[in-house]
Amino acid sequence: MASPKSWVPIPPKSDFSIANIPFGIITSRNSQTQKRPAVAIGDHALDLLAFSKGNGFSKLPSVDVSVFEQPTLNDFAALGRPVHREVRKYLQDILSESTSYPEILKDNAELQKAALLPKGEFKNHLPMKIGDYTDFFAGRNHAVNLGSMFRDPKNALQPNYNHLAVAYHGRASSVVVSGTHIRRPNGQILLDPTKPTEPTFAPCRFLDIELELAAFICKPNDLGEPIKIKNAADHIFGYVLMNDWSARDIQKFEYVPLGPFTAKNFGTTVSAWVVLADALEPFRADKLKSEIPPPKYLTEERDDTVYDIKLEVDLTTPDGGTTTISRVSGKNLLWSFPQMVAHHTVGGCNLGVGDLFGSGTISGTREERDDLGSMIEMNQQGKREIQLAGMDVRKFLKDGDTITIRGTCGGEDGALVGFGECTGTIESAVVYD
Amino acid sequence: MASPKSWVPIPPKSDFSIANIPFGIITSRNSQTQKRPAVAIGDHALDLLAFSKGNGFSKLPSVDVSVFEQPTLNDFAALGRPVHREVRKYLQDILSESTSYPEILKDNAELQKAALLPKGEFKNHLPMKIGDYTDFFAGRNHAVNLGSMFRDPKNALQPNYNHLAVAYHGRASSVVVSGTHIRRPNGQILLDPTKPTEPTFAPCRFLDIELELAAFICKPNDLGEPIKIKNAADHIFGYVLMNDWSARDIQKFEYVPLGPFTAKNFGTTVSAWVVLADALEPFRADKLKSEIPPPKYLTEERDDTVYDIKLEVDLTTPDGGTTTISRVSGKNLLWSFPQMVAHHTVGGCNLGVGDLFGSGTISGTREERDDLGSMIEMNQQGKREIQLAGMDVRKFLKDGDTITIRGTCGGEDGALVGFGECTGTIESAVVYD
Repeated sequence: MASPKSWVPIPPKSDFSIANIPFGIITSRNSQTQKRPAVAIGDHALDLLAFSKGNGFSKLPSVDVSVFEQPTLNDFAALGRPVHREVRKYLQDILSESTSYPEILKDNAELQKAALLPKGEFKNHLPMKIGDYTDFFAGRNHAVNLGSMFRDPKNALQPNYNHLAVAYHGRASSVVVSGTHIRRPNGQILLDPTKPTEPTFAPCRFLDIELELAAFICKPNDLGEPIKIKNAADHIFGYVLMNDWSARDIQKFEYVPLGPFTAKNFGTTVSAWVVLADALEPFRADKLKSEIPPPKYLTEERDDTVYDIKLEVDLTTPDGGTTTISRVSGKNLLWSFPQMVAHHTVGGCNLGVGDLFGSGTISGTREERDDLGSMIEMNQQGKREIQLAGMDVRKFLKDGDTITIRGTCGGEDGALVGFGECTGTIESAVVYD
Repeated sequence: MASPKSWVPIPPKSDFSIANIPFGIITSRNSQTQKRPAVAIGDHALDLLAFSKGNGFSKLPSVDVSVFEQPTLNDFAALGRPVHREVRKYLQDILSESTSYPEILKDNAELQKAALLPKGEFKNHLPMKIGDYTDFFAGRNHAVNLGSMFRDPKNALQPNYNHLAVAYHGRASSVVVSGTHIRRPNGQILLDPTKPTEPTFAPCRFLDIELELAAFICKPNDLGEPIKIKNAADHIFGYVLMNDWSARDIQKFEYVPLGPFTAKNFGTTVSAWVVLADALEPFRADKLKSEIPPPKYLTEERDDTVYDIKLEVDLTTPDGGTTTISRVSGKNLLWSFPQMVAHHTVGGCNLGVGDLFGSGTISGTREERDDLGSMIEMNQQGKREIQLAGMDVRKFLKDGDTITIRGTCGGEDGALVGFGECTGTIESAVVYD
């Protein structure tokens, strides 16, 4: 189905075509303190609070517009997927060249001025209030690559890997929106691996990225009431890009036996615009084939429950040179997000609106060059330098480096469904006395 | 310093003497929907919303009483420790036999009727809105006991254990108040340990407890700004008892390499009344002696930064027989809560008001009989039965069993500082098709 053309000018390569309509939270130059919902269209943001106040939703009377007065998307998300679908379709109509209601916005200069904000006039904020954040490990290629490096290629995966969606609880408070600077963490690291009980307190030397997709939850369940796999997709609001910054040297010393802690909790960056699950429907792809059938509570009716999202990672050095260090499809997951929902709740754990699920690092199979989602894979555990533009090299991130993740679906200019940027720049560590 | 006598009748063995004044959240028979702050005194709750509305705080005009209109203690906590101290002292005065202001409550029958609720007239709720929950592993005896069972007694502790406060991020959404029933989780377990890749999906068979203390955070820090050890105590609001229910068989299959997940996230119970840090001051005790000096960022000026709290665990079987299965002091920690705060934030992680820190399981050294904080320690990894009253035995919990943790400081009748109960009853697992 070809997307309609929009009367809003949309650059051909824009992530935010009329086929997308992602939701976010903004403030504007004229209203710098009131956070409110918006959708992205081309280089503009449509301020949904202003749109709603200007009777923009008058042709969609069933929707409770009070959700657009909130400083997060949680209340909108909680309305459920049928409502997200209805609102997205309505906004696609309003923004299309052949809109059924030109009087609402297309021919309404006053409301356009109030609600349609050009680039530079608005600022994005974290889209949801996150209750709990869970990071999965569903990128099997990444798990194989790490397991091969740290253990051995024949036993790269732990015995549980193909049976359940391995995950750990992450830190919700330090999830930040794209653009937030990340300070290099201090911690205890082993400078001499032959002395495993003599750590040194120092700034992280092996500061890494993890290229991930992440989903926000829109529908809660009660404690003790698992979400069955057949209903799991109803609980997913939409998707963002995520960079799960990781301090590999700190992680190495601390993570046995309870998993990563200060090696991860200093910051996790997500892109600002939530791409609704519906917008990704045309880009369904088969997940990675499992070596064994999953248990019944994780068995899906179809295989195409992940998405073919073209992911790219750019590293920009302090002198401004930019190199794309990774290109990989988001379909490289063994477990889909609905499977993650079913597994997370199998013992009765309750999810809340705004909870965030990370996929785990997404890497390819090395069939393509540079299809890896973390620097520790690219540098082969510190053995080689990653080549950058301008003769520069990196093993891990230096202060002042900027990482930018992008993700786009579809090839048709003017009809792309993309995520915008997920970017962050490294600041130097706190100096301890 | 002897505590003053209260004009409110206080049973001699009450946890809630006038020396305590713990804070909680209640609803009452007459107002079943409006959650509001209260303090416990003997068998009564003093409803602070009603007290405030009745001009109860008129002699303490500096305090912003709007915090008592909130459904959680977060806003009160956020006022900071000097204010908690002032309010506690003021309420001790109001409730003492020799109160400076008898007209406020002691001689005010009308306000007593409105605000002083006897047992049975009120119900407790979760005291704080928890942002993030972190569970530490600071009970060294427990770590030694587990390490000895799972690995070997000579290498019981991991190389990092004495260097940093090992912890994992837990699940905040499933932290529930004392009295909430806990449903036995389903999950993947290895029935035959010789077949490590053939798990069975079944209800947990090894359902265990973990006896812990937990602290609520009252003062936030910004992302990237570590809390220094000398300021860490200012960030702690108060303490509760905690039972970190654990599914040992599910944990065994899932926890490598990222730590416990569905084995823990089905429920964590906390006691209802938050005992302020100030109320525990007289019961300071030395923490466990470390084998090595901690790193500078974790070095405290004094050793007595934990508390001598008499902890007890009762197991009540469905037929009503109760056995005390553990008695141990809360001082059995290698790391104090201020050290946990400093370590948690060392890399820049931001804490929020209402965050919950668990100590990890508190066990003794087996010098005393039955001084262990988990059943897997008591049953020596399934090798022996735990003897209960009435010829009954347990290795792990059966459906219908109730666990009740209690904790008390001080020996003087009428001046106890206790926590009330932290209790939960096991319900049978969800039946999957």
